[in-house]
Amino acid sequence: CINWVESSSWDGRKAIVVAGDIAVYGKGPARPTGGAGAVAMLIGPDAPLVFDCGVRASYMTHAYDFYKPDLASEFPYVDGKLSIHCYLSALDNCYNLFCKKMRNVDPNFKGLLSLDGMLFHSPYCKLVQKSLARVCFNDFLNAEEGEREKQFPGLSQFNSYQRENTYFDRDVEKAFMTYSKELFDDKTKPSLYVARNVGNMYTSSLYGGLVSYLVSKSADQLIGKKFALFSYGSGLASTMYSINICNDMSAGSKLEKLINSLHENVEMLNKRVPVAPQMFSDLMQVRTENYHTAPYEPSGSID
Amino acid sequence: CINWVESSSWDGRKAIVVAGDIAVYGKGPARPTGGAGAVAMLIGPDAPLVFDCGVRASYMTHAYDFYKPDLASEFPYVDGKLSIHCYLSALDNCYNLFCKKMRNVDPNFKGLLSLDGMLFHSPYCKLVQKSLARVCFNDFLNAEEGEREKQFPGLSQFNSYQRENTYFDRDVEKAFMTYSKELFDDKTKPSLYVARNVGNMYTSSLYGGLVSYLVSKSADQLIGKKFALFSYGSGLASTMYSINICNDMSAGSKLEKLINSLHENVEMLNKRVPVAPQMFSDLMQVRTENYHTAPYEPSGSID
Repeated sequence: CINWVESSSWDGRKAIVVAGDIAVYGKGPARPTGGAGAVAMLIGPDAPLVFDCGVRASYMTHAYDFYKPDLASEFPYVDGKLSIHCYLSALDNCYNLFCKKMRNVDPNFKGLLSLDGMLFHSPYCKLVQKSLARVCFNDFLNAEEGEREKQFPGLSQFNSYQRENTYFDRDVEKAFMTYSKELFDDKTKPSLYVARNVGNMYTSSLYGGLVSYLVSKSADQLIGKKFALFSYGSGLASTMYSINICNDMSAGSKLEKLINSLHENVEMLNKRVPVAPQMFSDLMQVRTENYHTAPYEPSGSID
Repeated sequence: CINWVESSSWDGRKAIVVAGDIAVYGKGPARPTGGAGAVAMLIGPDAPLVFDCGVRASYMTHAYDFYKPDLASEFPYVDGKLSIHCYLSALDNCYNLFCKKMRNVDPNFKGLLSLDGMLFHSPYCKLVQKSLARVCFNDFLNAEEGEREKQFPGLSQFNSYQRENTYFDRDVEKAFMTYSKELFDDKTKPSLYVARNVGNMYTSSLYGGLVSYLVSKSADQLIGKKFALFSYGSGLASTMYSINICNDMSAGSKLEKLINSLHENVEMLNKRVPVAPQMFSDLMQVRTENYHTAPYEPSGSID
């Protein structure tokens, strides 16, 4: 859409991008991580959120992550370890290409230290926390060995570690989770409000993160800030890009209107009606039994 | 893709667009119109085929054309009359918006008379012929009444006809089919070679038409020519746009290389192995019985 607005095809209209999905899983540990949601975004010129040009970094590869070999079922085959490997290796690839492109534009770009926020697609919040630790591990590996001790005190034991051998290395994970705790609280945790309350929304997950981030801070904390976003889809396709918040947070500005409307939307989460897990399980059972049934006769109560 | 090449995201790489599909129908009159094919296109700057800017005309609406209410079957519900109405009304809408945009760029634009070729998505070739007649009917309605007799001699009986009441008007169809016969032979029929030999290829249908058009003429007949293309997808989404052929058909030029490679590809159609309709029907029966079956055990011969 942004390319369209920049192109000769653009005729002055704004574009609307709607990211929506429902993440449903079979019975088991993945089921409670699912969620449903949609985020609609208006794309146009002179926007309050401005995309950086020329730094978008994508990585795609064939992988049986969330493979659905049985089309009679809407549930994926879940292989947790494979999914984590896919997600973290996609993150490594996108982040390093993103940093390389960023340094082309700004030779002083220093990875996470040069970013005010870092947002991730969120299958579940713990993986996002591990992801920020992973970003720090990448920054560590990308730093000159002589410079590492200053930014990463006490982590020199990992000097000879390789990216590809460490996706499940508990020592690396623990050390960089500890190292990045404050960075996480500052740059990433504010983006997880919707994910913590709704679960994984698939295509809208990252944009729920964007909403969360924007409503988490005061106007003063937002203006002029730059943050990176990591988008991930199973299969797999992933992209990292960055957004700058404009400097105009005056009364009536586009940014003020945007933030105010987001606050109203997020408030609606508090009006949810909780139901017991068993009811969700029962409803999913009806859904499973009727998947692809045609003609379909509703079986539930009409109340 | 063209927007991407024009945008700030473009990094100098060419893009590849692959349009591919397989059109399968249940038993009945639609089945023989199905086909399978794919067309891959390289998109980049300084191309031998140049898209016009600012004249692309799209029309979309909700319609149950090729509705698939039963997801346990890969076949659509076919309603021939509805499909024709959807297709021709989409054509009317796209063509009139396209002409309006063309006149903004070139006040002397005169519809079909200003185009060297007109290519259509082809569900079956007869509908394409009716579509060119329909374009002429639109040109007729768009002409000043006093001017009509000169371009459309003997058709003044249709002076008061309305577009929306004439999709199944046999008098209009017959009169404009007769009127447009030579225009069809000149501007559209050359685009139907692949469609006549392969059938409807869905997303690649129009690009099979482009291939056919480009191999149908000599270099002298191609250089500098402008033609319009009508793309249609059930549901429905449709677009009309125009392409200009560059003026450089010299030995070794991009255009010469393109045309030569297309000739080689189209030649491969002659190497097809014909089979009896019953064999196709039997193969489709195996496909129908096994649709969405998991796990799947192949039942055919291994010869």
